[in-house]
Amino acid sequence: MSPTPVALSELIAALGGDLLGGSDLQIAGIAPLDEADERSIAFLANPRYQVQLATTRAACVIVAPALAEAAAARGAAIVTPDPYLYFARLTQWWAQRTRPAAKAGVHPSAIVSPDAKLGQGVEIGPLAVIESGAVIGDHARIGAHCVVERDAHVGERTRLAPRVVLGYGCRIGARGLVHSGVVIGADGFGFAPSRDGYVKIEQLGNVTIGDDVEIGANTCIDRGALADTVIEDGVKLDNLIQIAHNVHIGKRTAMAGCGAIAGSTRIGANCTIGGAANIIGHLNIADGVHISACTTVTRDITQPGVYTGTYPFEENSSWQKNAATLRQLHTLRERVRALEKK
Amino acid sequence: MSPTPVALSELIAALGGDLLGGSDLQIAGIAPLDEADERSIAFLANPRYQVQLATTRAACVIVAPALAEAAAARGAAIVTPDPYLYFARLTQWWAQRTRPAAKAGVHPSAIVSPDAKLGQGVEIGPLAVIESGAVIGDHARIGAHCVVERDAHVGERTRLAPRVVLGYGCRIGARGLVHSGVVIGADGFGFAPSRDGYVKIEQLGNVTIGDDVEIGANTCIDRGALADTVIEDGVKLDNLIQIAHNVHIGKRTAMAGCGAIAGSTRIGANCTIGGAANIIGHLNIADGVHISACTTVTRDITQPGVYTGTYPFEENSSWQKNAATLRQLHTLRERVRALEKK
Amino acid sequence: MSPTPVALSELIAALGGDLLGGSDLQIAGIAPLDEADERSIAFLANPRYQVQLATTRAACVIVAPALAEAAAARGAAIVTPDPYLYFARLTQWWAQRTRPAAKAGVHPSAIVSPDAKLGQGVEIGPLAVIESGAVIGDHARIGAHCVVERDAHVGERTRLAPRVVLGYGCRIGARGLVHSGVVIGADGFGFAPSRDGYVKIEQLGNVTIGDDVEIGANTCIDRGALADTVIEDGVKLDNLIQIAHNVHIGKRTAMAGCGAIAGSTRIGANCTIGGAANIIGHLNIADGVHISACTTVTRDITQPGVYTGTYPFEENSSWQKNAATLRQLHTLRERVRALEKK
Repeated sequence: MSPTPVALSELIAALGGDLLGGSDLQIAGIAPLDEADERSIAFLANPRYQVQLATTRAACVIVAPALAEAAAARGAAIVTPDPYLYFARLTQWWAQRTRPAAKAGVHPSAIVSPDAKLGQGVEIGPLAVIESGAVIGDHARIGAHCVVERDAHVGERTRLAPRVVLGYGCRIGARGLVHSGVVIGADGFGFAPSRDGYVKIEQLGNVTIGDDVEIGANTCIDRGALADTVIEDGVKLDNLIQIAHNVHIGKRTAMAGCGAIAGSTRIGANCTIGGAANIIGHLNIADGVHISACTTVTRDITQPGVYTGTYPFEENSSWQKNAATLRQLHTLRERVRALEKK
Repeated sequence: MSPTPVALSELIAALGGDLLGGSDLQIAGIAPLDEADERSIAFLANPRYQVQLATTRAACVIVAPALAEAAAARGAAIVTPDPYLYFARLTQWWAQRTRPAAKAGVHPSAIVSPDAKLGQGVEIGPLAVIESGAVIGDHARIGAHCVVERDAHVGERTRLAPRVVLGYGCRIGARGLVHSGVVIGADGFGFAPSRDGYVKIEQLGNVTIGDDVEIGANTCIDRGALADTVIEDGVKLDNLIQIAHNVHIGKRTAMAGCGAIAGSTRIGANCTIGGAANIIGHLNIADGVHISACTTVTRDITQPGVYTGTYPFEENSSWQKNAATLRQLHTLRERVRALEKK
Repeated sequence: MSPTPVALSELIAALGGDLLGGSDLQIAGIAPLDEADERSIAFLANPRYQVQLATTRAACVIVAPALAEAAAARGAAIVTPDPYLYFARLTQWWAQRTRPAAKAGVHPSAIVSPDAKLGQGVEIGPLAVIESGAVIGDHARIGAHCVVERDAHVGERTRLAPRVVLGYGCRIGARGLVHSGVVIGADGFGFAPSRDGYVKIEQLGNVTIGDDVEIGANTCIDRGALADTVIEDGVKLDNLIQIAHNVHIGKRTAMAGCGAIAGSTRIGANCTIGGAANIIGHLNIADGVHISACTTVTRDITQPGVYTGTYPFEENSSWQKNAATLRQLHTLRERVRALEKK
C-alpha cells in the first residue's frame, strides 16, 4: 500500500504504546493477522483470534497487555489497552503519510458565487458549484462536481467527496465526511390528497447536521416539511440510507447501509441500527437501542436492548411448507386451544 | 423561515377560506400546532389533535367548519372544508413568496448541443449537458450538472434538480419534479445465459413518464427491454426506489422510499406502496391496492385492499425462540393434526 | 425503434441461424410475441408461450428446432438451438445498427490530468474529470461528469455511463459497463468505539473489478479496509446495490437490484441473488447458490441450492392475527408438547 516503509520506532513516536522488540523493523503495510507478511503490522483485538498469533507472519502485532508475553515471544509487539482503537488511529496516521495532501485553492473550473464565503485553506474541486450565500468553513474540502446550494453551510475541516449535493439552507458541522452521491436536502415526501390528485406540500424546513458526522455514498437526507431534519454530533451513516423529513437522530448513533427511517421518527443517542433495517414513521426510539439487520420496527421502543425481526431463511422447499403454514398460524392456535379444552 | 412577515388578510386574499378574526395579524412562518409561536400559522386536520388547540401559541389555526368555534375562541382561525389541503396550498404559496424566482437562460458553463430544442423561458443550470435532439419544454428548469441525453424530452414547467440523468430517448411530461441523483433510462437488467457466461440483452426501449410526476432523490427507473417502461400521470415516487424495465405504474399511485418493483410488473392506479416494500416481477396489481411498508408481494393482487407481510420484531431473545420454532412450523402443524386424530 | 428496416437475409448473414421463408421481409423492430406487428421479429424461448404462435402478428419468429414446423406454418421463422441467446445477440446487433457510434476524443470541457494515460480510441465525455495517474484503456468510453480519481484504472472497451465515480486506486477490467450514479471506492464503514465517540478506521484498500462486469445505476462498491474488495470476471450487479468493504464476489454471479452484501462476506461463483436480498457480514456462500428475492442470509451456505426467507404477505387483517400469534409461537410449541405428554 505504501511506497515508503517506516520504522516501528517512528510509528511508536507518533502513536504511543509500549514496543517490545524490533524498533528498527521496517513496516510497509497494515494487514489482518492471517494475511500479514514479514513487512506488515497486524492487530489482535478479539481473543478468539489468539491462535493466529502462532502462525501469523506479521513483523509486529498490536496486542492488549494480557497477550503481551505471547506476542513478544514470536516477534515485535506493541502493547496498548485497546488494540482496536490503536489500529484505528494507526490507519489514520498511515493514510496521512501515504495520501496526497489537500491542495488549498479554488479549481479554475469551479463556479463559485461572488456572494459565497470561503474560509481559510479551503479546497474547491473541479467543476464544483458554490451558490450565493453558501459558507465554506476553514480548511473544508469540496470535491469535484459538488453542488453547495444557496445559503448552505459546510463546517470547518469537513470534506465532501466528489459529487455531493448540499441543498439550499442546509448545514453540516465540523470535521464531517460526506461520500459521493449523497443528496442532502431533497424534498421530503409530502402530499395532500385532493379530487384532482396529490397536491404537493412544499418542504420548507432544512437539514441540520452536527459535527463529526460521516455519511455514506448515495445516502439521502430529506429536508423537513416545516421544522428541520436533524442529525446530531458524531452520527455515522453508511451507504444508500434514506432519512425522511423531520427525522431526528441522536448523538453517536450509527446506522449500517440500506436502511430507512420514515418521516418524523426520533431516534435516541448511542443506538446502532443494522443494515437494511427500517423504522416506520412517527416513532420514538430510546437511547441505547440496538436494531438487528433487516428488522422492521413498527412501534416505539422505550427500553435499551437488542431488537430483532428477521425472517429465518432456509432451503426453499422447507420454506415453502413453513410459509404456507404461517398463513394458517392463527387457526393452528385455535386448534391447540380446542385440544386443550378437551 | 421567511424574512418578511405577511398579514393574514393577504394570505386569505391569495388562498381563500373564511377568516375569523385577526386580519391584521402578521404571520412569519408555518409551524405544527405544538411548535408554533405567536407569529406562526398552524393547521388542525386530524381531530385527534384537537386537544392541542387549547395549548398552541399559534397566531392562527386552519380548521374545518366543525372546529371553527373552538378555534376562534382562542385566536384567529381560517375555516375551510379540507384543512390539510389548504395547508398544502399554503406551503406552495409560501415557497413562492420566499424562494428566489427561476432565472430563465442558459448558464454560460452549460454544454447545449446546437441540435437541442429549448422552449421559452427555459433555465439551464451551470455545467448541465443537453445532447443533440433533446427537447426542453417551455419554462422547464434543468439544474446544475444534469445530463439530458440525445432525443430525451422534458415537458413544460418540469424541473430537474441538480444532477439528474435523463437517458437517451426518454421522456417526462409537464409540471414534473425530479430530485437530485435520479437516473432515468439506465439499462434494464437482462442477460441470456450461455456457456461463455451471460450475454447482454441490449435494452432497446425507453422510459415514458407522464405529467405531474415527482421522483425522489437517487431513484432509478430503467429503460425497457423492447417496449418502454411507463410511469403514468400523477405518480409520486420517493427516494432510492428501483423501477425495473417494462414496469407500468398507473395514474396517481404513490410509493414511499426504498422499495423496488421488479421487471414487467404492472401496478394499477391510485395504489399506495409503503416504504421498503418490494414487488417481484411479472405480476399484476389491481387499482386501489395498498401495500404496507416492508412487505414483499410475490403474487398477483386482483382486489383493492390493504396487504401486509411484515415480520413482527421483538426483543432479541424472544425472537430467537420464535424464529427457531418457525423453522419447525410445518412439523408443529403435523403434530397438532396427530393430536386431533386421537 | 429503428428508422431503417433491415431485410431478414441481412440479419441472418450477421447472426446465423436457419431461415425458413421470408428472406426479403423487412424488419423494423424487435417485439414480444404478443406486441409484435407485421414488421417485427419476435422470439419464442419458453414452450409455455407456444400458444402465442397462433395469434402473433410477427413477421418472423425465432424458435428452437422442435417448434420449427409450427412456426414456419404461420410465417417466416429462424431456427436456432437457443432462441433466447439468439435474441440477446440480435439485440446487440440491433443496438449497434441504430445507436450513434462512439466518438473517440476528449471533449474540450473535460479536465484530464497531464499525468493520466489515455489509450487509443478513448472517448472522454463533457465535464469528466480524470485525475493524475489514472489509466484509461484502449477504446474505453468515459461519460459526461464522470470522475476517475488518481491512479484508478479503466480496462479496454469498458464504458462508464455519465456520472460515475471510480475512486483512487480502484480498477475495473475490460469490456465492463458501469451505469450512472455508481460509486466505486467510497470508504467502507469502519469505526472503533472510544470514550470520545467513534474513531474512524481509514479504509486503505481499493476495489478490484474483473472483466465483463456490469454494474447498475446508483450501486455502491466500497473500498476495502486493508485488502481490496473484489468483484470477479463476468459478475452482473443491478441497480442500488450495496457491496461493503472486503466483500468478494465470485465469477459470473448475478445480483438483482437493491440487495446488500455486508462486510467481508465471500460469495461463490455462478450464484444468483434475488432482488432486495441481503447477506450479513463475514459469511461464506458456496458456488451455485441461489438466494430468493427479499431473503436475509444470516449464516454460511455450504451447499448449492435454492434458499428462501420471505415473509408471506396476505390481506392485512389476516396478517395481524397471524403476526400476533407468531410472537407466541414458542409458547404454542410448548403447549403442543404438553398436550402430547398427556
